[in-house]
Amino acid sequence: MHAEAKVLLVGDELLEGRVSDRNLAVVAEALSSRGLAVSEARVSADNMEAVSRAVREMLGPGVLLVTTGGLGPTDDDMTLSAVASTLGLPLVRNAAAEGFVRDRYRMQGVPCPSGALVQADIPEGSRPVRNPAGVAPGIVLDSLGGTVISLPGVPREAAALVGPCLDEAGLAAVGQARQAIVRTWGIPEQELYDLVRREGLADTAQTAFLPRPSMVDLKLRGPDSASAARRIAARLGRKAYAVGEWRSLEAVLGGALQERGLMLGVAESCTGGMLGARLTSVPGSSGWFAGGVIAYSDRLKSSLLGVGEDLLAAHGAVSEETARAMARGVLERLGAGAALAVTGIAGPAGGTPEKPVGTVWIAATGPGFEAALANRLWGDRDAVREGAVARAMGLLWEMLG
Amino acid sequence: MHAEAKVLLVGDELLEGRVSDRNLAVVAEALSSRGLAVSEARVSADNMEAVSRAVREMLGPGVLLVTTGGLGPTDDDMTLSAVASTLGLPLVRNAAAEGFVRDRYRMQGVPCPSGALVQADIPEGSRPVRNPAGVAPGIVLDSLGGTVISLPGVPREAAALVGPCLDEAGLAAVGQARQAIVRTWGIPEQELYDLVRREGLADTAQTAFLPRPSMVDLKLRGPDSASAARRIAARLGRKAYAVGEWRSLEAVLGGALQERGLMLGVAESCTGGMLGARLTSVPGSSGWFAGGVIAYSDRLKSSLLGVGEDLLAAHGAVSEETARAMARGVLERLGAGAALAVTGIAGPAGGTPEKPVGTVWIAATGPGFEAALANRLWGDRDAVREGAVARAMGLLWEMLG
Repeated sequence: MHAEAKVLLVGDELLEGRVSDRNLAVVAEALSSRGLAVSEARVSADNMEAVSRAVREMLGPGVLLVTTGGLGPTDDDMTLSAVASTLGLPLVRNAAAEGFVRDRYRMQGVPCPSGALVQADIPEGSRPVRNPAGVAPGIVLDSLGGTVISLPGVPREAAALVGPCLDEAGLAAVGQARQAIVRTWGIPEQELYDLVRREGLADTAQTAFLPRPSMVDLKLRGPDSASAARRIAARLGRKAYAVGEWRSLEAVLGGALQERGLMLGVAESCTGGMLGARLTSVPGSSGWFAGGVIAYSDRLKSSLLGVGEDLLAAHGAVSEETARAMARGVLERLGAGAALAVTGIAGPAGGTPEKPVGTVWIAATGPGFEAALANRLWGDRDAVREGAVARAMGLLWEMLG
Repeated sequence: MHAEAKVLLVGDELLEGRVSDRNLAVVAEALSSRGLAVSEARVSADNMEAVSRAVREMLGPGVLLVTTGGLGPTDDDMTLSAVASTLGLPLVRNAAAEGFVRDRYRMQGVPCPSGALVQADIPEGSRPVRNPAGVAPGIVLDSLGGTVISLPGVPREAAALVGPCLDEAGLAAVGQARQAIVRTWGIPEQELYDLVRREGLADTAQTAFLPRPSMVDLKLRGPDSASAARRIAARLGRKAYAVGEWRSLEAVLGGALQERGLMLGVAESCTGGMLGARLTSVPGSSGWFAGGVIAYSDRLKSSLLGVGEDLLAAHGAVSEETARAMARGVLERLGAGAALAVTGIAGPAGGTPEKPVGTVWIAATGPGFEAALANRLWGDRDAVREGAVARAMGLLWEMLG
């Protein structure tokens, strides 16, 4: 049995500042759903010495070590060589692994290049696992009283392979640990922290605060965490959009729209499509999302949404009046049942003393309601846009309550 | 002087699978621009013991250790306590740091809560650095013949503070190392690898391949890397969009549009706004991006873009004909000078034997050209959408060549 898990992310690109890792979160989540916590993670360069040293330091009795990266067909893919040499094993061409590689090319109707077969050379004694999202198989290898699982570095392949590899390693899914979550939007971290302290929760449950622009997740651990989460959520009203589960705001909002039989339309200026992109990241969003207009230029705000040129001239594109007119334009011109509009100054240029960078107006409208929200968001262009998307979704979710 | 850099990412959330780190890439990039390579990175849990152990194992003579996370006002923010106790230093209220915290609240016109001032308690002897994007100051501390820099975990704050902290630590910017980059779109990694081998480059330069959906970056190291990069780029034509620099495809495309005085409009179905969001992530994009239509429903494809209902019925929403009609609709109805249209099946549902998940049609049109590109993209919903955005931008960039 495994007492702890460790993760080794292999890739020069991760240490050189050009790519952000996305695999640790996915691997940790998969391990956690099988009752195994990650005690440590490291990032290693793409070379034999660095990977060998990390494997040597991290692997031991009771340890499940998951590596990501370096399984492809090119010369910089040397994770399996390093694992094999560290554990004193030869690399051998594995017939099952070769079958997986050849099958993958056959499925795509492409001849299998001979260079691709190096992906079937794996440490002696390891078990290959078919890659449902790519070519390189994953491997599972018991050694030194622990287990090594090696996954490809491409995030969608690692995500697709981690479950099958954990199955192969004999880790079954278990019940969730005693923890609870409250997901919030539009409340500053400090304010949420003060609320949690006033509720006297610091004593009864361990807390953690995970902030993103205009959203904070509050995580509670301990035997009372579920009731504490419900108590805090009750205080927060519609500023808490998920309690006890990790559903996203876009999925929660989509569910509320679908329940009410409303098709949502959006009008986006400074977010440039990011609100639509976030909403349509939810599978099945076509059941409640109709589409929208990216009205980046003022001309399109008028021609596609019917925002009056006189209104734009009098109040400016970033104003409550324009946001409301954009939302009404979505209802009228797109025939949507509910609408969201966002207009603001994302920066770095375009700010003025009256309307500095971070000024964003949001409007939401639907059956029986029309609301507008003024925002002064902190941070850079990305943070302002992300915050605006979060608050737009939050406002509509609040109005549907 | 520092011989190497190490990075310690602090945060339970990173080990628990709920959040992906975005700081390592930013910190590594900043270090690299000052001539310092990251030899190792680790992720540590949010507790005194784990952080102390990591600091003890990683810090030493000639080492610059950058930590991120755990500088906020709440109880789970204990990085500075762990650093101080590991190095045998007390935490003391620092007057300059207190000024930074108070200034930040004053700027926002909000009274400073007394709880916020714990962010001014820093290890004795460390220098605080003002946080331009948030409250908690960064710190720089020389110890054990090396240096510790501690940054907040919120990505936009870490990004804003890393430069000022490296300045405070005395690391000046240097010339780029001898490496070159070729950024490509629409070429499979294996094909690029074969091309590099045929060019005999494996001998003269170290190579690395960094894949994302429908994009691969080729990185070359060594004294001949710049000329090798130019040689490969010449073979690739417009499939290479940046050579020797890390410009993004959206920025390159925007530059090409602006040069030609063209305003771009988009029509998005399966990408739901993601193409517009990516284009408008470029500061100043209003100079070449007009806006677009998120035509997620077929009704909007007809009403906003003028795609004929008979055409939709005859060929389906995911077809060359519909993609071309959407692009023409953008030119005619939005008055844009160039247009991109994307329509496809992102999954997980909606695929058929004839048009499986991953089938995406892209059309690009502008002065003197109209092109359509069929795509069969691998991967999950996110990968298909990301790949479609990359190929849409690539197709237009190719047509503008």
